[in-house]
Amino acid sequence: MKVVALAGGVGGARLAYGLAQLLPAADLTVVVNIGDDFEHFGLYICPDLDTICYTLAGMENPETGWGRVDESWNVLQHLAQFGAPEWFRLGDRDLALHLERTRRLQAGEPLSQVTRHICQSLGVQPTVLPASDDAVPTRVETDEGSLSFQEYFVKRGCQPRVVAFRFEGEQYASPAPGVLPTLQQASLVVICPSNPWVSIDPILAIPGIQPGLVQKSVVAVSPIIAGKTVKGPAAKMCRELGIPPTALAVAQHYALLLNGFVLDQADAALKPEILDMGLQPLVIPTLMKTPADRVSLARQVLAFGSRLANSTKE
Amino acid sequence: MKVVALAGGVGGARLAYGLAQLLPAADLTVVVNIGDDFEHFGLYICPDLDTICYTLAGMENPETGWGRVDESWNVLQHLAQFGAPEWFRLGDRDLALHLERTRRLQAGEPLSQVTRHICQSLGVQPTVLPASDDAVPTRVETDEGSLSFQEYFVKRGCQPRVVAFRFEGEQYASPAPGVLPTLQQASLVVICPSNPWVSIDPILAIPGIQPGLVQKSVVAVSPIIAGKTVKGPAAKMCRELGIPPTALAVAQHYALLLNGFVLDQADAALKPEILDMGLQPLVIPTLMKTPADRVSLARQVLAFGSRLANSTKE
Repeated sequence: MKVVALAGGVGGARLAYGLAQLLPAADLTVVVNIGDDFEHFGLYICPDLDTICYTLAGMENPETGWGRVDESWNVLQHLAQFGAPEWFRLGDRDLALHLERTRRLQAGEPLSQVTRHICQSLGVQPTVLPASDDAVPTRVETDEGSLSFQEYFVKRGCQPRVVAFRFEGEQYASPAPGVLPTLQQASLVVICPSNPWVSIDPILAIPGIQPGLVQKSVVAVSPIIAGKTVKGPAAKMCRELGIPPTALAVAQHYALLLNGFVLDQADAALKPEILDMGLQPLVIPTLMKTPADRVSLARQVLAFGSRLANSTKE
Repeated sequence: MKVVALAGGVGGARLAYGLAQLLPAADLTVVVNIGDDFEHFGLYICPDLDTICYTLAGMENPETGWGRVDESWNVLQHLAQFGAPEWFRLGDRDLALHLERTRRLQAGEPLSQVTRHICQSLGVQPTVLPASDDAVPTRVETDEGSLSFQEYFVKRGCQPRVVAFRFEGEQYASPAPGVLPTLQQASLVVICPSNPWVSIDPILAIPGIQPGLVQKSVVAVSPIIAGKTVKGPAAKMCRELGIPPTALAVAQHYALLLNGFVLDQADAALKPEILDMGLQPLVIPTLMKTPADRVSLARQVLAFGSRLANSTKE
C-alpha cells in the first residue's frame, strides 16, 4: 500500500517514524510543511523538514523535539560574544545542515533536490518532499501586528493573540516535483497529528495539493487530546480563533477532505459527532511517548486506512 | 603622531599589532583590504579584516596565520557528513563572527559599522576600517581562466599562472566613511608588508584613496626578503607577471606614492637603487617571528616615518 503522510513538526515526525518502520521505503512519502522556513544569519532554515529528517534518521533530540541528539553549542556560545540574537538556538551539527542547504540553494538546486541529498547523507530511506520548492512563508496576524512565523513561534513564544494566518505567495506556488504523482499513486493519505493551522494548512494551501486528495482515502490523526495539545500552540490558537479546542474542531477543520478520523481514547465521547459528520472514527491511544508508541499508532492507522481504502470514497 | 596603516593579511596584521602596542589607540587607524571578501555557504566572509581583528585582539592562530587560536571544528566535521566543500576551513569561533556579520549586513548595516561592532566585541582598541563599504572583489586572470580570489588562493592553492588582477567595480566604489578624513589627519601612512598586488592594490584602487596619500609621509615595508615572501604568493606572482621577485620590484611598484622604503638587511645591497629612485631607504631586520619582533619593527618604522615627516615631501 503506497502511503503519503502530510506532516509538520514533532507529532508529524513521530508518526512518520512509525510509518517508516512498517512500510517499505519505496511505499512511503512524507510531504512536509515549508511555512516555517526562514532566513536567519544568512542561512536558509527549514525547521519542519529538519525535524522530520532527524526523526526518520533516529537523530532527533528527544528532549527538545527540535534539533539533533548529541548536539554541541560552540558556535552559539561564541555568537553570544558578539551580542547576536540567541532566540533561535543553533547547534553545531544543525548548523552544518543549514550551511550546506544554503550553499546548494544559492547554487541553484531546488529545495526538493537539496532535501533528497540531505536524506541520503543522513541515511533516511523514505522519500521526504517539501510541499513546494517555492517559498510560502507563514505570516501570523496577531493583536500585536503581523509577525513572521518564527518571530511568533520561537522569539515571542506564541504569546501574541492570533487573529489569522496567511501563507505568502501561496497562489504562485507549485507542489514540489513528485508531490502530485506520488499522491496520484497513493492508496492512503495520512494527515499526521500536526498543527492544522500552521503545519498542515500551509501544505494544503499549495495549489494542486487538495485536488490531489480527492478520490483518495484520507485519514487524519488529531493533534488535540482531551482539549490540549501534546506539544505546541494548537489549542491556544483554537481559543484565539474562537473555536473550542477539541479533536472535533480538528475533524471539522479538515471536514470534506477526510474519510476517517483518529482520535484519542480520552476523546471517545466525541465518536458520535465524528460519525454524524460522515467520517469513520478510530478511537485508540494516540499519545506517542516512546518509539514503540509511534509504531503502534502507525500500525493501527495503516490498518484503519487499509479498511477505508477497500470501501469507496464518496 | 597620527598613523594610518594599509594592510592585508598576516604580514600586515603583525605590523599593525606592533604599531598598536606603541601608539595610543586614537592615533592608529588600519585600513584593510576587502578584495578577498566573498560569500560562502550564504555567509559573508572577510578574511583580511578577520586576520587583522583577531591579531589586534591577540586571538589569531599563530600556526595557520588565519582563523582563531583555541579554535574548535565541530561544524566543519559535520559538514563533511553532507559532502560539503571543505577547502575553506570554517572554525566554530570564526563561524560565529561570519554569522553575525552576515546578519548585520543583511539588516542593512554597512561593513564599516559591522567591523566597528566586531572590534568592540573582541576588545580591539585602534580603529579598523574596511577600505570600502562597497564590494570590490578581486578577480585573478590566469592561464586557466578568470577565478575569484578565494578560488585561486585557497581552493587552487595559487597554482594557476597569474596573467592579471582585476578589482570588480572599483570605479563605482567609495572609501568607507572615515578613511579619507583619517588620511587627511595622518602624519604618516605605513604600507604594511602585505602582498602589493592582491592586498594593497585593491585598497589603492578605491577612487579617492591614492589622492589622499599626496602630501603625506608614506613608508612601505617590503614583504619580499631576499627574493622570497615570508608567507603567501607575492614572489610567485612577480615571476608570473615577468617582474624579478625582489624588494626593489616592490619599491618600484609603489614608486611615486612613497617617501621611504623599509627593506630587510638581507637586501642591503639594494640600498643604492632605492636611493636612485629618490626614496629614503631603511635597512633593518624585518622578519616578524615573535610579538617582540612586531613591536621592534613598528618602533623603527615609526621613528623612520617621523624623521621623514619632518622633511618635506616633494
